[in-house]
Amino acid sequence: MLCSTRIWISNWKTRRCALCIGTRPSSCYWGPVLVLGGSTSLDHEGLGGFQEFPQVNASRPYCKYAARPPTAALIPLHVENAVRLCTYGRPGAAYLDLPATLLTQKIDESKIYNVLLCPPPPLIYPQNDLIEQAAGILVKAKKPLIIVGKGAAYAKAEAQVRDLVSATDLPFLPTPMGKGVVADSHKNSVASARTLALQKSDVILLLGARLNWMLHFGKAPRFQTNVKVIQVDICAEELHNSVTSAVGIQADLKPTVELLTKALRDRRFVFSKNTPWWKELTAKSQQNKEVIERMASDSSSPLNYYATFKSIQAVLPADCIICAEGANTMDISRTILLNEKPRHRLDAGTFGTMGVGPGFAIAAALYCKDNFPGKRVICVEGDSAFGFSGMEIETMFRYKLPIILVIINNNGIYGGLDEETFRQIQATGEATQVTPAFSLTSGTRYEKMMEMFNRKGYFCTTVPEIHQAFKGALKIKDSPSIINIMIDPQADRKEQKFSWLTEPKL
Amino acid sequence: MLCSTRIWISNWKTRRCALCIGTRPSSCYWGPVLVLGGSTSLDHEGLGGFQEFPQVNASRPYCKYAARPPTAALIPLHVENAVRLCTYGRPGAAYLDLPATLLTQKIDESKIYNVLLCPPPPLIYPQNDLIEQAAGILVKAKKPLIIVGKGAAYAKAEAQVRDLVSATDLPFLPTPMGKGVVADSHKNSVASARTLALQKSDVILLLGARLNWMLHFGKAPRFQTNVKVIQVDICAEELHNSVTSAVGIQADLKPTVELLTKALRDRRFVFSKNTPWWKELTAKSQQNKEVIERMASDSSSPLNYYATFKSIQAVLPADCIICAEGANTMDISRTILLNEKPRHRLDAGTFGTMGVGPGFAIAAALYCKDNFPGKRVICVEGDSAFGFSGMEIETMFRYKLPIILVIINNNGIYGGLDEETFRQIQATGEATQVTPAFSLTSGTRYEKMMEMFNRKGYFCTTVPEIHQAFKGALKIKDSPSIINIMIDPQADRKEQKFSWLTEPKL
Amino acid sequence: MLCSTRIWISNWKTRRCALCIGTRPSSCYWGPVLVLGGSTSLDHEGLGGFQEFPQVNASRPYCKYAARPPTAALIPLHVENAVRLCTYGRPGAAYLDLPATLLTQKIDESKIYNVLLCPPPPLIYPQNDLIEQAAGILVKAKKPLIIVGKGAAYAKAEAQVRDLVSATDLPFLPTPMGKGVVADSHKNSVASARTLALQKSDVILLLGARLNWMLHFGKAPRFQTNVKVIQVDICAEELHNSVTSAVGIQADLKPTVELLTKALRDRRFVFSKNTPWWKELTAKSQQNKEVIERMASDSSSPLNYYATFKSIQAVLPADCIICAEGANTMDISRTILLNEKPRHRLDAGTFGTMGVGPGFAIAAALYCKDNFPGKRVICVEGDSAFGFSGMEIETMFRYKLPIILVIINNNGIYGGLDEETFRQIQATGEATQVTPAFSLTSGTRYEKMMEMFNRKGYFCTTVPEIHQAFKGALKIKDSPSIINIMIDPQADRKEQKFSWLTEPKL
Amino acid sequence: MLCSTRIWISNWKTRRCALCIGTRPSSCYWGPVLVLGGSTSLDHEGLGGFQEFPQVNASRPYCKYAARPPTAALIPLHVENAVRLCTYGRPGAAYLDLPATLLTQKIDESKIYNVLLCPPPPLIYPQNDLIEQAAGILVKAKKPLIIVGKGAAYAKAEAQVRDLVSATDLPFLPTPMGKGVVADSHKNSVASARTLALQKSDVILLLGARLNWMLHFGKAPRFQTNVKVIQVDICAEELHNSVTSAVGIQADLKPTVELLTKALRDRRFVFSKNTPWWKELTAKSQQNKEVIERMASDSSSPLNYYATFKSIQAVLPADCIICAEGANTMDISRTILLNEKPRHRLDAGTFGTMGVGPGFAIAAALYCKDNFPGKRVICVEGDSAFGFSGMEIETMFRYKLPIILVIINNNGIYGGLDEETFRQIQATGEATQVTPAFSLTSGTRYEKMMEMFNRKGYFCTTVPEIHQAFKGALKIKDSPSIINIMIDPQADRKEQKFSWLTEPKL
Repeated sequence: MLCSTRIWISNWKTRRCALCIGTRPSSCYWGPVLVLGGSTSLDHEGLGGFQEFPQVNASRPYCKYAARPPTAALIPLHVENAVRLCTYGRPGAAYLDLPATLLTQKIDESKIYNVLLCPPPPLIYPQNDLIEQAAGILVKAKKPLIIVGKGAAYAKAEAQVRDLVSATDLPFLPTPMGKGVVADSHKNSVASARTLALQKSDVILLLGARLNWMLHFGKAPRFQTNVKVIQVDICAEELHNSVTSAVGIQADLKPTVELLTKALRDRRFVFSKNTPWWKELTAKSQQNKEVIERMASDSSSPLNYYATFKSIQAVLPADCIICAEGANTMDISRTILLNEKPRHRLDAGTFGTMGVGPGFAIAAALYCKDNFPGKRVICVEGDSAFGFSGMEIETMFRYKLPIILVIINNNGIYGGLDEETFRQIQATGEATQVTPAFSLTSGTRYEKMMEMFNRKGYFCTTVPEIHQAFKGALKIKDSPSIINIMIDPQADRKEQKFSWLTEPKL
Repeated sequence: MLCSTRIWISNWKTRRCALCIGTRPSSCYWGPVLVLGGSTSLDHEGLGGFQEFPQVNASRPYCKYAARPPTAALIPLHVENAVRLCTYGRPGAAYLDLPATLLTQKIDESKIYNVLLCPPPPLIYPQNDLIEQAAGILVKAKKPLIIVGKGAAYAKAEAQVRDLVSATDLPFLPTPMGKGVVADSHKNSVASARTLALQKSDVILLLGARLNWMLHFGKAPRFQTNVKVIQVDICAEELHNSVTSAVGIQADLKPTVELLTKALRDRRFVFSKNTPWWKELTAKSQQNKEVIERMASDSSSPLNYYATFKSIQAVLPADCIICAEGANTMDISRTILLNEKPRHRLDAGTFGTMGVGPGFAIAAALYCKDNFPGKRVICVEGDSAFGFSGMEIETMFRYKLPIILVIINNNGIYGGLDEETFRQIQATGEATQVTPAFSLTSGTRYEKMMEMFNRKGYFCTTVPEIHQAFKGALKIKDSPSIINIMIDPQADRKEQKFSWLTEPKL
Repeated sequence: MLCSTRIWISNWKTRRCALCIGTRPSSCYWGPVLVLGGSTSLDHEGLGGFQEFPQVNASRPYCKYAARPPTAALIPLHVENAVRLCTYGRPGAAYLDLPATLLTQKIDESKIYNVLLCPPPPLIYPQNDLIEQAAGILVKAKKPLIIVGKGAAYAKAEAQVRDLVSATDLPFLPTPMGKGVVADSHKNSVASARTLALQKSDVILLLGARLNWMLHFGKAPRFQTNVKVIQVDICAEELHNSVTSAVGIQADLKPTVELLTKALRDRRFVFSKNTPWWKELTAKSQQNKEVIERMASDSSSPLNYYATFKSIQAVLPADCIICAEGANTMDISRTILLNEKPRHRLDAGTFGTMGVGPGFAIAAALYCKDNFPGKRVICVEGDSAFGFSGMEIETMFRYKLPIILVIINNNGIYGGLDEETFRQIQATGEATQVTPAFSLTSGTRYEKMMEMFNRKGYFCTTVPEIHQAFKGALKIKDSPSIINIMIDPQADRKEQKFSWLTEPKL
Repeated sequence: MLCSTRIWISNWKTRRCALCIGTRPSSCYWGPVLVLGGSTSLDHEGLGGFQEFPQVNASRPYCKYAARPPTAALIPLHVENAVRLCTYGRPGAAYLDLPATLLTQKIDESKIYNVLLCPPPPLIYPQNDLIEQAAGILVKAKKPLIIVGKGAAYAKAEAQVRDLVSATDLPFLPTPMGKGVVADSHKNSVASARTLALQKSDVILLLGARLNWMLHFGKAPRFQTNVKVIQVDICAEELHNSVTSAVGIQADLKPTVELLTKALRDRRFVFSKNTPWWKELTAKSQQNKEVIERMASDSSSPLNYYATFKSIQAVLPADCIICAEGANTMDISRTILLNEKPRHRLDAGTFGTMGVGPGFAIAAALYCKDNFPGKRVICVEGDSAFGFSGMEIETMFRYKLPIILVIINNNGIYGGLDEETFRQIQATGEATQVTPAFSLTSGTRYEKMMEMFNRKGYFCTTVPEIHQAFKGALKIKDSPSIINIMIDPQADRKEQKFSWLTEPKL
């Protein structure tokens, strides 16, 4: 995940203090973010000062570090603390409160607290015998599976994880933000047979992923009851969470995966494509791909999700960064829009917080502008999700960021309506009156927001229009674009074996 | 202030849970608002459940009541508690967490906790001798002043306060949300001489207003050091805050003002327009009005704030509800856009939280739709403020709310730039490149957002265009409008005696 | 309740900072208490300073006000705020954090923030028509009851409440800390028929009491389902809590009770002792008194609770202050030790927090020392309760406070053991080995703690010994005493119609 | 540090719920402690239930994990979480709230959530090149120093650290709870020259210790400005705190110290006793020992601290566990009472919380009872500290724990009074009246508390009496003892180069 520090500082620079920005603190919870806020003048506290509120206190539950420097001279101390705690150990957010009194305080330069630049985070190594144990379990596995989590992306362990997959021919599955650590197009990806892979595997190598709701807590019926988990995580407290791992390793993924690969190589372990497990996975994968392919080939109007994303995938630069949010939009796009590189996908995250897409895209684009000019940022938004933070298009223009905002517009109909309900909705009147509580204004032309800036957006209802729109948008180098794609309000995911959040009732 | 309960429930109905809505909890702090959220299934807690977070805990600092009913059967108990605590005593926010487990729980109807409808809030009466004291002080005052706060609006004490002003001919000044309790057009309003009135008065009758930052803490140099304050507040703890009142009365304003008026009538007290104080106030008021009138008459393009608001005031329905936010936009509009009725102005509030305008406008419009069909809601937004929640235009269309969004567009240039800096900014390039950290994309055509819904907005640079735009917008009865008014980026308030937040350094 | 402010300041004076005192914040929750603490030097924050912890944050949930003055010059501002918020409205606790940096800071005297002495709390008056409604309901009641809560004690409304009872002959019942507002010995007290009075009354006049667990939530089976409650409370939010009152009056008790008495006098309302309700109450009261009298007359050794307390009551000064804590000790003592004066009983309070007795007694004794020399403070402690804060005997000696500590010693056997269990415990060995998890060291001679100070305590196993002990202790004017009374470990309350906390299952 | 889990459970078993126990949560902050509490019945929440309070919320700031299981069936899930989080990573506290509703809930056994026993905490290994760097720096050091922190005790790394010291002959210094990891009597301990060792060393190997207030933040004037710190810590976020380490290693101490020792052996590194640094340290150490020896030899009455502790040290079993608290008592005892084994000293801890000694001693004694019968626990208390929790003597008797409570009784005179002040105090009257705010009742005979249990305590004013007392107390195997040692109220530490908390003003 990219560090989105800059967007926050820019928020602050645009005079939006913490009470104003009203941002979604939950979205910061799981990544290295430094938020700067500014509460009331200290000498107005207790009297009802402007924006007087215990902001540090209010931020603390979301943060690894929250503080208000007592004087301007000590700002460096707290900045160093904040940056260090954001990035060391499991990454997270920090909040610094800089009240008005501090921002205008004059102090003698000699009294400024002196700090050195915070060194890069430490690297921790695994216990060798645990590597041996893990290798021993893996070589005996009948149905092994690697799950690559966003921890692998944070750890920049892509070279090591790719080598492991190549060396062993093991099947792997990425979590949403673990995508691209190994290329999605890699032949060993079993993303197309995700449900089967999770449900039947007897040994899982869990690399920087959590057995939380996103992985169905690692429990039946979504997993084998006696699945053996080999868990590698930077965070001690995460080990054995929900399921007691057969081997729990607290370590950084880079050295761990390297050592494990070596141990497996030493054992001359290769998990042949001829094994029954690979055959089963391949068959299921093939079958699912055909279902998807069939749906994706149905380019009749109104479009379905699969045809839409397939057409986008066809024209996306292979190295672009993809931000995505929404329900079906986020979930289905994840299966079709491929990431070839790590840290190139930003999802709503563990909390499933909506409204984060444009902010993530801005952070990513600012980062690319300085470091990878030419790399594009695509922000795929459900129309409901876009309704939270769509105004950030102004920020994108202001900073000349060529983000491509793609809105998958199903009129806010959150899929899965049964036929009858949908007919009832339609029966109540013309399109614009289809506004049950859970849907949005029908046929909203979000792309017209571009005209605020004397530009044109793209409105698409067909595959060729989508192709044309991307062709145009990719040419623009100094400002954002909006591509508004109307899809079938009734479109939904392909039939799922388990419905969403059908977790074990504990 | 209108109860904005409905907007929150509608948020919830649109599937935006508390973590998603990411709303600005600070904006709820001072009004009766019930927020419904939904955290993770209880049996997934501790494992990393979907949106698992201690939401009740996180809400508590902003709320008078925050709870999670332990079973569905007890929801009525907590709803009654929440509604009661929102509306009794000093109004405030409540938060109820309804986790997934509860929403799908089936219970026997006979087991549902039974509650009666919460009665209207109680009414408290003042101590009679304090009324006598207050009357005694007022009749001796040389330079008396009534300050009408939003507490008077909450208390629905307009008849009483108006009678007091009529009976005594005392000068009065409203706070931002106290506007309209007595009509802004009332001849006794000294809003045009606010600074003088505050600074020179020797006795202040404070009706439901707080001596917080908005009233400069009641302290020198903005007030006389020995000013006698007669304070009436529903909240005991508010009495004597910042300044020890000469008379502190905890009571509802309705009976208090009625009794006080009677006590003053009994004393045959009338504060004649011939007193030196009235003459001083009238002279200053006249002088300020002339300055403003001069600025307001300067309808040259680009427009200044005063000409803009004067032209809006000319065409606004007298009984409309005005929401306003932004810095200069909120402050200057307050002095020119008049409220003839109470509870018809919604400002950013004590915390000065940005992004609240459209939400307030939606709540007000939904309330009017049911209760006062025909009454219009106008939402006056600085362009920077509009950037927070402008997407709510979709909600307005969805619910067919004829809100008029007026954007006072100075390219985000937060006024008060000195000439030199402004020239430097301009010198750096053409208009669209004038984007220092504190400004926005220049010339943004916010009215074009209307085209998302196949409607046209209004772009205005002159007074006639403003008049034309309002004429058009007021005809529309079932959908919102946007009027985007370009003003001079250098426009500022008229020269102020004290700069903003130049408070006493304590 | 007495203001226990001084004990906290004395704690602080003895160098016990907030982290050290480790006091039970819950015990402060419901009364006007100002706690002073001191956190780390501000310039050591963020580095691991001595006692660095967000103490203000940690105190906030328990407090009406919690703050850390930013400079020494502003200490008066925050002290005034703290004192005011403690005592205005519903009383509560405040916490001020004075870090080391502040305590040693030198500032120019002219810069010290200037505050006036906080005026006494405001007095709020009831709505007259509610008084009329209340009177109307009371005169029609068949089975009326007055409940006198600790709010009446806080409000110092004893003259008014006593006059009401005298004027109307209504039966009344005090809550634990409402005892003495009307003398316990008053002929209209139905404390001896509490369960019946609550359960059968059709109209309850609730004066400053809460329908919380202590009053069984005002619900069946402990109350009539259709009981009409006339509720008078200073706190708006408390009205209608748990049960919707027939009349809910937010007002101070002094004026309210005075006006209500007048309204009843105007109606010539007297609730005759010849009514069936009075006859029923008197009969039940008589019956209960006989049961208690029978138990109290059983002065065989080991003593039971009733005989013990009866013998204490016989020798207690009528105007002494009684602090009590423990389970049976607190509950049974409340029914037998009489309070003739208001604010002379301090119980564990709403939270039932243990360990508060000696602290309360010290606060009361310090207050008496200055204001009512000669008035005695008696602290009745269950032996388990005494185990929390018994060391405060040292503080009592240090400040020369003639508190009489009475320990009701049942070896920590929390009553209600069935015969069989008790025999089993005894069968396991001699007395000193009777130490199941829920009991304490058998036969502990707490009175010997006096020998730490070269004094003798009193050990009593019979009524004459108790009388002798009090006779001795009451003669001592400048130091505390301990009277350790051994009672039957199996002693329990008389048979109850409802077992403890047998509340409605909601 | 010993796990004090059991004391908390025993508290709970004795019916002391979290609101009652009123314990000092700050004392749990830094160690693996599981606290069980019990809030109100869930169906009474919101109505004023017995002990209704958001206890989980209130506990959270002190805890690594705080939760309330939603049903009894899920208790095992939360217990496993709590135990795991207490003991994994940096140890800390957990709080589980078990409301009445849960404790009495009946559930089908088959529905109980199934958990496996939590595996032992993971072990993390250092980066090899950092070991090399560290070794490289150490071998070049002119004035090296090892600081052994309590992290080394938690990590059970005594064998490794001892081997390191033996192999290299490096000087070492323990932190308070790091004492005994290497025996205090080891010839390489420079505890007697602590100030010099810290102030002059050029390279510090920091093993599981924090550069917080206890180590003067690692800054001048207490340290060289350019001191090179080689920091080993289990917690990533702790690295570089306050001072940027030359080498920061996140790893467990066992493997790290082993690898580092090997690296130094490979380099044939031995830091000879003939180096100028060793000579300087030895000289200073000798000099300080002589000062102390001189003071310790002054056995005139009233005793000073040094003579007192020397006499205790002479008779203490070498393998006993020592708990200590108080100011001078804790600090001076630490320098004279030697620990030969790790995890045998329990101090007030980072927060300096008072009142923790007896609780720690009980936990330790319960642990020894089961695991090391015969091992003794000594609890050395300043008299002021003893005033917090002295009543726990009852618990010690109840559980038959042969703890020796030693009270160092200086009448609460917190040392450092200048002569004049002390004379003034004395001049105000006889001994028992010497009670300024900061002192305690003079001459309190704490040992007489033993008589509560029909035992005798020991009162000592001379060295022979101390020896006699210990001789007696050590013979008692099944109950606690109290040894009350009167010392000179004016006794203080030997002259210090830096006064307490004379830290850098930042």
